Parts: sequence; C-alpha cells; structure tokens
Amino acid sequence: MKKLLKEIRHNPLLWLLVFVPAVLAGEKLKPEAHTLLFVLSVLAIVPLAALLSHATESVAAKTGDAVGGLLNATLGNLTELVIALAALHAGQYMLVKASIAGAIVTNTLFMLGASFLLGGLKHHVQEYNRVSACMQAGLLFLATIALLIPSMVSQADSAARAAFTRKLSVGLALLLILAYGLGMLFSLKTHSELFASAEHSEASEAPWPLGLALPTLAGVTVLVALVSEVFVESVQKAAEAFGMTPAFVGFIVVALVGGAAEMASAFSGARKNRLDLSVGIALGSASQIALFVAPVLVLVSYFVGPTPMDLQFWPDAVIMILLATLTASLVTNSGRSAWFIGALLLMVYLIFAMTLYLLPPRAG
Amino acid sequence: MKKLLKEIRHNPLLWLLVFVPAVLAGEKLKPEAHTLLFVLSVLAIVPLAALLSHATESVAAKTGDAVGGLLNATLGNLTELVIALAALHAGQYMLVKASIAGAIVTNTLFMLGASFLLGGLKHHVQEYNRVSACMQAGLLFLATIALLIPSMVSQADSAARAAFTRKLSVGLALLLILAYGLGMLFSLKTHSELFASAEHSEASEAPWPLGLALPTLAGVTVLVALVSEVFVESVQKAAEAFGMTPAFVGFIVVALVGGAAEMASAFSGARKNRLDLSVGIALGSASQIALFVAPVLVLVSYFVGPTPMDLQFWPDAVIMILLATLTASLVTNSGRSAWFIGALLLMVYLIFAMTLYLLPPRAG
Amino acid sequence: MKKLLKEIRHNPLLWLLVFVPAVLAGEKLKPEAHTLLFVLSVLAIVPLAALLSHATESVAAKTGDAVGGLLNATLGNLTELVIALAALHAGQYMLVKASIAGAIVTNTLFMLGASFLLGGLKHHVQEYNRVSACMQAGLLFLATIALLIPSMVSQADSAARAAFTRKLSVGLALLLILAYGLGMLFSLKTHSELFASAEHSEASEAPWPLGLALPTLAGVTVLVALVSEVFVESVQKAAEAFGMTPAFVGFIVVALVGGAAEMASAFSGARKNRLDLSVGIALGSASQIALFVAPVLVLVSYFVGPTPMDLQFWPDAVIMILLATLTASLVTNSGRSAWFIGALLLMVYLIFAMTLYLLPPRAG
Repeated sequence: MKKLLKEIRHNPLLWLLVFVPAVLAGEKLKPEAHTLLFVLSVLAIVPLAALLSHATESVAAKTGDAVGGLLNATLGNLTELVIALAALHAGQYMLVKASIAGAIVTNTLFMLGASFLLGGLKHHVQEYNRVSACMQAGLLFLATIALLIPSMVSQADSAARAAFTRKLSVGLALLLILAYGLGMLFSLKTHSELFASAEHSEASEAPWPLGLALPTLAGVTVLVALVSEVFVESVQKAAEAFGMTPAFVGFIVVALVGGAAEMASAFSGARKNRLDLSVGIALGSASQIALFVAPVLVLVSYFVGPTPMDLQFWPDAVIMILLATLTASLVTNSGRSAWFIGALLLMVYLIFAMTLYLLPPRAG
Repeated sequence: MKKLLKEIRHNPLLWLLVFVPAVLAGEKLKPEAHTLLFVLSVLAIVPLAALLSHATESVAAKTGDAVGGLLNATLGNLTELVIALAALHAGQYMLVKASIAGAIVTNTLFMLGASFLLGGLKHHVQEYNRVSACMQAGLLFLATIALLIPSMVSQADSAARAAFTRKLSVGLALLLILAYGLGMLFSLKTHSELFASAEHSEASEAPWPLGLALPTLAGVTVLVALVSEVFVESVQKAAEAFGMTPAFVGFIVVALVGGAAEMASAFSGARKNRLDLSVGIALGSASQIALFVAPVLVLVSYFVGPTPMDLQFWPDAVIMILLATLTASLVTNSGRSAWFIGALLLMVYLIFAMTLYLLPPRAG
Repeated sequence: MKKLLKEIRHNPLLWLLVFVPAVLAGEKLKPEAHTLLFVLSVLAIVPLAALLSHATESVAAKTGDAVGGLLNATLGNLTELVIALAALHAGQYMLVKASIAGAIVTNTLFMLGASFLLGGLKHHVQEYNRVSACMQAGLLFLATIALLIPSMVSQADSAARAAFTRKLSVGLALLLILAYGLGMLFSLKTHSELFASAEHSEASEAPWPLGLALPTLAGVTVLVALVSEVFVESVQKAAEAFGMTPAFVGFIVVALVGGAAEMASAFSGARKNRLDLSVGIALGSASQIALFVAPVLVLVSYFVGPTPMDLQFWPDAVIMILLATLTASLVTNSGRSAWFIGALLLMVYLIFAMTLYLLPPRAG
C-alpha cells in the first residue's frame, strides 16, 4: 500500500486519481450535470487505466512466462472491454461498435503515428525488425477482414438479412475467439521469440509484489466499471452539448481514453529508440480488439444487453478500419521510420476525426 | 497401359476412379437421383484431375522446356476450365462466375493457408524467396484488378450499362489473353529463372512415356467433360437438398474439387520445406484463372451458351477476390511463414465459406 | 536567347512550339473550329511543359539546394495546375476533378509502367532502393487516403451532406497543404538523402543562366495559361466529336499532356538503369498532386470559379485512384523490376482508359 502511494506521488499521471472520487460523488450529488460528469469520468479513467496496466504487468511478471503473457495479453485491453460492457448494458450499441472500430483505428494510426513522430524527433531514422512488423501487420489485416466480413457482404437491411447477420456474427465470434486462442499459443509458446511485446513488462517500472498487484487489479477494475457507468450515462447528453456525434465519442474519445496506458508505453519505447516495442504494442493491441474484445462483446450481448448485438459496422467505420490496417501494413513495410511518416499517420487520423466530427449523425 | 494400372494401384487417390463409371452409369439408370449423382460426380472428378495433371506434366517433360512449360501452364487449370465450359453450355452463368471467383480465392487463401499450416507444423519458421513471391503477388494483384474493373465501375443495372459491360468485357478478355501470352513469354523465355513452379514437374513422380501420356490426356479430358456435365446438371437440385446456394457450390465446392491435384503438389512441397514451390503454384494458378480461364470463358460464351456472358461479378465476390489477393500480397511480404499465419488464412477462407453458405441466394 | 534557340534546334520535341502561335491565331480566326483548336492546343502544351520544366530546373540549380528544391517541387506540376485553373475559371469542375484523379493514376500506372517496360527492355532485371520506394509509396498512399476521405464517407447527396462535404473539403485542403509544407521540410531539409529525385536536375541537360531561365519561366507560364484557356474552351465540343466523355478527357488526355515533361525525365532515367530516379519522379509527382495541386484548387475555387469546388470525386475515380496507389505500393515492394511488370501496369492503365472511354457520361 505504501508502495502504491509512493508510486502515485512520483507519477504525475496518477494525480488524476483525485477525479475518481470526484466523479462518483458528482454522480450522487448532481446526476443531471451531464457535461461535468462526462469530463470528470474521462479524467478519472486515464489514471485507472495506467494503474490497471501496471498491476496486470506485475501479476504477469510473477506468474511466469506463459501464464503471465496470457494475462498480459488478455487484460491489456481490459479498460476498453469494461467501458464497452457498460455501454452494452445500457443498450448503446452504436457506442460499443464505435469504440471497437475506434480502438483499432486509434491503435494503428494514432499510436503508431505518434510513436514514429516522437521517436523521429529524437532519432534521425529509426530501424525496426521489418519481418516481425510485416508478420504482425499481416495478422492484423487478417483479423480485420474476419471482423468486417458481415459488414461488407450484407448491405441491404431487410429482415432476412438481419437474421443472416446475427447468425453470421455468432459463428464469427466463435471463430475469432478460437483464432485468438491459437494466437496465444503461437505468440507465447511456439514462436514467442517473434514478439517484441513480450519484453513489454521489463521496459516499465519495477513490478509490484503479488500482495499489492492482485488487490489493485481487482479494486481498480471495480472502479473502472463504476466510472464507466457514469461515463456511458453522461456521454449522450454531454456529446450533444459539445456538438459531438455518438460515433465521434466512441471512435475517438473512448479509444484515446481507454488506450492511454498502452500509449504511454509505446511512446516511451519510441523515445528510447526501441521502435520494435512500439510497433508490437500498437499492432498487437489492435489485433486483440478484433480477435478478442469484439467477439466477447457479441457473445456477452446475449446475456447482458436488451437485444443481441451483431458485428455489422456502419460503412464509414468499415472503410476507416480497412484503410487503417492497410496503412499499417504498407507503412511498416520498409522497416524504417522517420518523423514525417509519423506526421502523415497522425494527419490521416486527424482527418478521420474531423470527418466523424462534421458527419451528420446516423442511427446505430 | 500397364504403367497406368500400376500407378493406380499405388496411389490411393486414384482408387476413386471407380466412381467415374459409377456416375456415368447412374446418369443413365437414375437421372433423377440428383443428390447421389452430385456426390458421385464430385468423387469422380478428383482422381481425374490428378490423372490429368500427371499426364500434362509427362507431355510437358517430353516436349522440351518452352513448349512443355506452355502446355503445363495452359493445361494446369484444365479441370476448372472443362467444368466451367459444361456450366456455360447449360447457361448457368452464376455457377461459372462463382467458380472463377472461387478458384482465385481458394488458390490464394486455402491453398496458401494450408501449405503454410502443413509446412509450419513440421518446420518452425519457413523462409522463401520474398522477391519472387512479391513479384508473383504483384502480378496476381494486377491481374485481379484487370478482371474486376467492369464489376467495380458499373453498379447500376440499366440497359445502357448492360451494353457497356458487355463491350468492356470483350475488350477486357482480349487484353487479358494478350497479357497471358506476354506472361508466358516472360515466365518461360525471358525470365524463367524467377519462377519456381518451373521445377514443378521434377518434384512429382517419374513422367510417363508419350505413348501413354497423350492418350491419357485425351481420354481423361473426355471423361472430365462427361462427368462435369452430370455434375452441372445435378448440382442445382442437389445444392438445394444440402441447403447450399449456387454461389457456395461454385465458389467453394467446384474450386476445391477442380484444384485438388494442384493442392496435392503444393502441400507436398510445403511439407518438404520447399515453400517457394507452394507459393509459386498457389499464386501462379490464381493468376492463370484471372488471365486465361476467365477471358476464354467470356469469348467462348459467344459460341456456346444461350447468351454471351460478361465479366460482371456480384459485389460480395468482388470484395472477396480483392481481399484474398491483397492478403496474398501482404502475407507473402515478409518472406517468412509459420503455422499461425496459415491458420489465419484458413480462418478467413472458412469465414468466406460460412458467409456464402448462410447468405440468402441472389440471381446471377 | 541564342541559347534558347539553339536548344530548340537540337530538341525535336521543342519543334512542336510552332503550334503555340498556331493555336492562338486559330482561336482568333476560327473560334468555332473546336476539334482543330483542341488538337492544336494539345500539341502546343507538350513543348511548353518541357520548356517550363527545364526553366524551373535551371532556376532551382542557381538558387541553391533548399530554395531550388522547393521551387522544383512546387513548380514541377505547374502545367497541370495552370490547365486546372483554366478549367476552374470556366466552371468545368468535372474536368478539374478528372484531371486531378487522372494525374495521380497516370503518374503511378502509366509513368511507372512505361519506365519499367522501357528499362526492362534494355536491362534484364533492374534493382532499385526498395526502402526509399516503400517509404515514398507509403507517403503516396497516406496522401491519397487523406484526399479521398470526403468521397468515401458521404455517399448520399442530400443538402445536409453537401454542406458537410464543403466544410470538410476546406478543412482537408488546409491540412493537406500543411502536410505538403512538412513534406518539403522533410525531403529538402531533414531527410534529403532519402529522395533520389533531388538529383533530378543533374540528370538533364546543362542549366540555363538566370537571365534566360527567369524570363522563360514567366513567359512560358503565360503561354501555357493562354493555350490552356483555348484547350478548356474547345475540349467539351471536341470531345463530343471524338466520342470522348469529359471524364476521359480530364483523366487521360490532360494527365498525359500535362505530365509529358516529367515522363521524358522518368523514361530516360529508366533507360539509363537509374530506376530510383524514375520511381522517385513518378511517386513524388503523384503525391504532389494530392498534397498540393488538389487543395490549392479547392481554396482558389472560392475566389475564381462560379461556386466553390469540393473534394468529392465520383465513385469510379475513387476506386481507380485507390487501386493505382495500392498497386504502386505492392509493385515497388520487391525493389526489383522486369519488363512484364511494366507491361501489366500499362495494361491496367489501358483498361482504366478503355472503361472511361466506354462509360456513359455522368454529371460532375
């Protein structure tokens, strides 16, 4: 506990933890102050995500390579998952789908772009292992195609199509989770040497003892769940106040907030000229959203939400996801990076964000 | 003849030849048993394709490099061509187009994926010549774009569009065949060293003497034609019995059946850690469908079918073909393969198959 | 002046300059002879573009690396820009957009394809720096996505959409020009060693003195503007006479005419086995159209044309541009080229041209 407090004192990001009680108190005292609650909940999720990430890594470090890697990979996107579950529970499918789509796009364009830019401002040209990067980008592309098939084939919206899409989505979710399991086997067991992100934990600070890490993991997950609920309740009204569509909020805001902790690791790797680490985190995290988070949400929707959710994304999201993963493939192709490539990736991300901000809203 | 019988005794695949007389007899005796005839004809085509492939290679081996290579390349997809001609003759354009689309997708996703998986289960990481693979994937991508242009530009279905599509298809077919001719010149004459599939024949069993190979080639082609006719007649009704759409049958069943012989070569190459061979067969065969089989069918349709056939594919097929060839490009990019990449390729193929199986049928 | 006349005597291309007075005289004497004026103006623009290119390079050579490079890059597509401005002034937005789209496609497919073919006919296999090529292809792909976003997201055509598209286009134009500025900084200042096209000028003939280059630059720009006006006025009627749609004229004719000078440099580089130069000119010029010419035209349209122009391209153009830049990425991937790759690139270009020629016209 002392260690936790010490860490909080030394890490300015964690000072934001003060917003956690603030948002929970605000929810009780002023449940109608949607804009305030929205801002507070965003500010509260960021440090919780950072704590969650450190706790996960600490548990992973103690439990040995295989189990630890599994934990790390599975809980790595826990924040996104918890937020999406809160939205699912509230029946806000547009927000859920937008946050899935946004997480993939944000990881590939924003996280990769900012890593290239930050690294490139310090180092003239940065080299990274292009074979690993190509393989990971290839995996991400395959995962993306698999995820997007129902959205690409069923353009009509008749009743027969809806039944077809639902059946396909369930079959797909099961296949994606199977692929995720095989991927774990591949990256942790048979071919662990190919995955730089396995070194992920050693790059960050000293791990906590299990006695601290496990309770933190449990406690923080509960806090994220509580704050997410406030976030999801307030987001609709707050978004209107800021002139943002639900698509924009899910795609950009949730994705940036949920991925804050991983971004910190990726950016610090890039500054230290360890671009393999940054590329591994960015592409690996995006693959995980497609292969694990999205199918879990589909399956859970049969038990949690008002009606089952399918994997039908709206056309703009399909285009943006496909372009983002294609870009990741083409850009990591040379195995070399410089600041301008990062700047262009960020520009494409900015254009996506601008488009979603200006786009008239549509039903989810 | 004794040699042929001896080969049949030693190759269990060829025992399926017993289904050839069975299906022809069945057609005479029970022409209304569509499901039975369908199953019998599928079982009969597989060994015929294997014989055809061996006979072609034997003729090619005897006639010297240039002519042999030409024969090998042109007759390599003879089975697919004969089945498609039977469907064309019966006016089943949906089946023809689905089998063209399916052959490209099956070669790139299934043949490549299974090669990577089978090879990867035996060898930790397999390396292959990435420059050759990139070039072949590039050629395939260009051939695919050329094939798909009419489908991508003419989305409306007015009468003016139909005339436009028909004119464009004929012009395109002539250009594709020209490109195929240039490709022969390139791969057999000026740059034969780049194409691993040229070694194709030496990888397989001892060639037959011409006196055996030529009659076999002629006779088996006739048998394939006869069986294909039964297959095409029975497929519609049988597919209904199995709950399969014509798109699924053409895309998946015809493609797997027609490509069985080539798959056997590709898989055996992968097991022997000769992945260049597998990649060459898979990508080369897919290119050949786009550059040779498809345009020949368009031109022949002016003489054989009830009305001319155009090159307008339905939108889902366009998306699947494009994604498959794009995937081939991105995945062969690293020049390295491991089992999980193969598993993911197979998963995408499975998802395509599942989608086509579940998809409500549409008119061709 | 003597030097200019001497150059004209030695360069057969410049003999076409005789068509400049011809077209201006024709415009005065026979303003209704549209077909004649169209042909004459096309013939007149080609040598003017060549002179413009040489004058720009001469000024660039004299003014030192940074300013020179800036001039070279910014004025490199001056001919295309002046033609498009004339079309903008006449309110022919379809022609403007078609010429933007066509310039990108022509540079990537035709210029690259013809370079590979011409180089490949002389050299067996040509190698070029694949890392530079991959990076430049990656930049081009990112620039293209940025340019095409408004066309890809807003498929409906309601009034709300029109306002959205216009706002997005202006925001986008500003971002693209910012990216262009950063790109200048990158390619001329921080990472000039990566860009082979910087050696561009030394490849061509001896530079002119400033006293000749500057007046030539100014005078020829005025001539191009005058001839472009005739071209734009006559093109509509002449195109009808030749059975060409405005899309075909803008996409193919304007792009080939405007890029003639750069093509000459690229082809000569390829023949001399300096394929890095050819790839750099082709991809760099295409990027420049997307990042500089297109946004400048959008912004200028607020002052020059009858109504503001947006960046909404028609769907076929979007598909062709995306396929062209994707092809450039995949094809330059191997770092090796041979004649058949060039032939296939040209074939895809030919198919695009054939499609646009046959396509029934649509409103811009």
